[in-house]
Amino acid sequence: MIEEKLLMTLSQKTETKMVLLVLDGVGGLPVHGKTALETAVTPNFDRLAAESSLGFSTPVSPGITPGSGPGHLSIFGYDPLKYEIGRGVLEALGIGMELGPCDLSSRGNFCTMDLSGVVTDRRAGRISTDVNEQICVKLQETIREIDGVEIIVRPGKEHRFVVVFRGDGLAGPLTDTDPQKVGLKPLPAEPVSPDGQRAADIVNTFMNLAREVLAAEHPANACLLRGIAKVPDIPSMSMLFKLNPAAIATYPMYRGLARLVGMDILETGETVADELTTLEEHYNNHDFFYVHVKKTDSHGEDGNFEKKVKVIEEVDALLPRLLKLNPDVLAVTGDHSTPCTLEGHSWHPVPYLLKADTIRLDPGNRYTEDQCRTGALGWFLAKESMSLMMGHALKFNKYGA
Amino acid sequence: MIEEKLLMTLSQKTETKMVLLVLDGVGGLPVHGKTALETAVTPNFDRLAAESSLGFSTPVSPGITPGSGPGHLSIFGYDPLKYEIGRGVLEALGIGMELGPCDLSSRGNFCTMDLSGVVTDRRAGRISTDVNEQICVKLQETIREIDGVEIIVRPGKEHRFVVVFRGDGLAGPLTDTDPQKVGLKPLPAEPVSPDGQRAADIVNTFMNLAREVLAAEHPANACLLRGIAKVPDIPSMSMLFKLNPAAIATYPMYRGLARLVGMDILETGETVADELTTLEEHYNNHDFFYVHVKKTDSHGEDGNFEKKVKVIEEVDALLPRLLKLNPDVLAVTGDHSTPCTLEGHSWHPVPYLLKADTIRLDPGNRYTEDQCRTGALGWFLAKESMSLMMGHALKFNKYGA
Repeated sequence: MIEEKLLMTLSQKTETKMVLLVLDGVGGLPVHGKTALETAVTPNFDRLAAESSLGFSTPVSPGITPGSGPGHLSIFGYDPLKYEIGRGVLEALGIGMELGPCDLSSRGNFCTMDLSGVVTDRRAGRISTDVNEQICVKLQETIREIDGVEIIVRPGKEHRFVVVFRGDGLAGPLTDTDPQKVGLKPLPAEPVSPDGQRAADIVNTFMNLAREVLAAEHPANACLLRGIAKVPDIPSMSMLFKLNPAAIATYPMYRGLARLVGMDILETGETVADELTTLEEHYNNHDFFYVHVKKTDSHGEDGNFEKKVKVIEEVDALLPRLLKLNPDVLAVTGDHSTPCTLEGHSWHPVPYLLKADTIRLDPGNRYTEDQCRTGALGWFLAKESMSLMMGHALKFNKYGA
Repeated sequence: MIEEKLLMTLSQKTETKMVLLVLDGVGGLPVHGKTALETAVTPNFDRLAAESSLGFSTPVSPGITPGSGPGHLSIFGYDPLKYEIGRGVLEALGIGMELGPCDLSSRGNFCTMDLSGVVTDRRAGRISTDVNEQICVKLQETIREIDGVEIIVRPGKEHRFVVVFRGDGLAGPLTDTDPQKVGLKPLPAEPVSPDGQRAADIVNTFMNLAREVLAAEHPANACLLRGIAKVPDIPSMSMLFKLNPAAIATYPMYRGLARLVGMDILETGETVADELTTLEEHYNNHDFFYVHVKKTDSHGEDGNFEKKVKVIEEVDALLPRLLKLNPDVLAVTGDHSTPCTLEGHSWHPVPYLLKADTIRLDPGNRYTEDQCRTGALGWFLAKESMSLMMGHALKFNKYGA
């Protein structure tokens, strides 16, 4: 992959428009001999595939399964091994928090601790979200500030919550306080680099204060922190690619990931149809659109093959609305595969489709794993896919004389 | 890609001979459903393809379009992102100048300037080559030396010329004096690193002197310099690969690029047939031959599909002469694609053919984009292709015990 500095030199502002349609976790493994994409009845995708280049996008590196963070950074054109998105940051983005450069974010678990300070249940019996919300209010009301650092506590689902430490001079990442096993005491957060000492002190003070606040609760009488870090210092897509990019996503985490790379976040509704309406309404205002479809991944995680197939068919039915906009480059892919048989993300290469006037044709006429394998785009790393879009949109200057 | 140091260790001198036939810009995009290679009638290439391994070579990185410099460095086995060839160097090579390590080369444009020193036409109305030649003589006769540095001025076509600053202690690259827009004054050349100050002073003195010399001319009453740099400090092919390489090319730029990597330049005629005669005559004297065919690219740049097809057919007709020499490894490829529909270089992977006794066969029986896509060599970066040739020629030792 070429360096970011060079990308900035090569990129040029043009009138051409690009749409990146991300079917989250779209790649899969066969069930009764066929993957979800191969099983789905998709007349519109078939027609599109016949006029497109197909290929396979490897999310991080062969055999490596990405989380949503690296999966998305890659398809946005960033090296997922260079920029790390901590679990705290991802969780904060997932509940719709906006993070700035002064924010140290942490994922929290409420846990159960015995009198000797040993963790006996790392999830406090998976307390209800209601209880979680009450405890978070209590924590937040008692702990508002530590040594000039604002403390922001927000509940997630069940035993999960987020703490953001907002203030100057906080450097991450820190090590987890979660010992990862019951029968052990929580660990102190420790700085990874020397400039993290102040942050570690604040976080450890928070741990002590939280223990006092929670002492009377049961079973959630303590908490554990993981993935304590800041947002990566990442150049925006407008810096890298001279784009004016916008994101359309129904889930907060994906809007948050898009905000990390400097996209404008467009308000949208709950459905894919709503997302397409948003795309249509804003089509004149941006030159790059990231449109995120979540449910392909959700059903993959649940191992629900029929529903995953159904979502693909629903998107297919809506595809003509997108095609009517006639973007100069349309790419369809996922951020990773989520095979129903694995009920989780996987490392398998992700089917990639690119439609433009500048493509090389291949015989493929279906957007499927089987046909993408031998497509005209070949196999590439996901982090290179933005360059493929940029190239096909004639948005790159020639490299070298 | 493995490092140069390792290449040097692995390479061994053997009796085997290799020929690299470069059809410049040979890759393309479909016109009426077929690329130029797919359209051309090529019985000899077809027979050769049936006995060869096919593959796809990505010039620099997915989506990135190379200039001729990086395109050629790659197929000669060098990392095009490591070694930069400035526009001045390429232009100087293009008009047949031989450059040494003391030469700082610059591409020049004659331009029109108004009384306030603002550029009003960056190409001086594209003056004729005749006028250009007269002005260059005048410049050269007046400015022969600046502070011990020899000044060499040579005309190119229309408003283009080359200045070489030849002397000790000149370090490049420098920034352009061309402001890239009319309505602005020329910029001073500035050093990119601290050791470039002397070079910058010499170049800026030249700019001032040139303005005095040109003051009475019209419209070419000033000049602008771009791509001011030295040749990259690059290990020779004989160092890297223990080869005794020779280049056969009708155009000066490609002879110049070959000279940069230490090839012997063989005198040849104007046609591909002349080049083959040269190959035949010198076949016993070298173990690597680079044979360059220019016109595939020229017609691609002109958007002339029929002529590009025709050149491919002409090379096909001459192919038996090359095959008769029976090189141990014969590779056919381009330095990049030049689709007629884009009238310029492109990022698309380049069809690659390799014939040797050591190849793995594939079903391919045509040297075309369509068949190279699924060939036995797979997809690789152009900078790796020399290693494929070396490997198939049994010129590499085993790596590791």
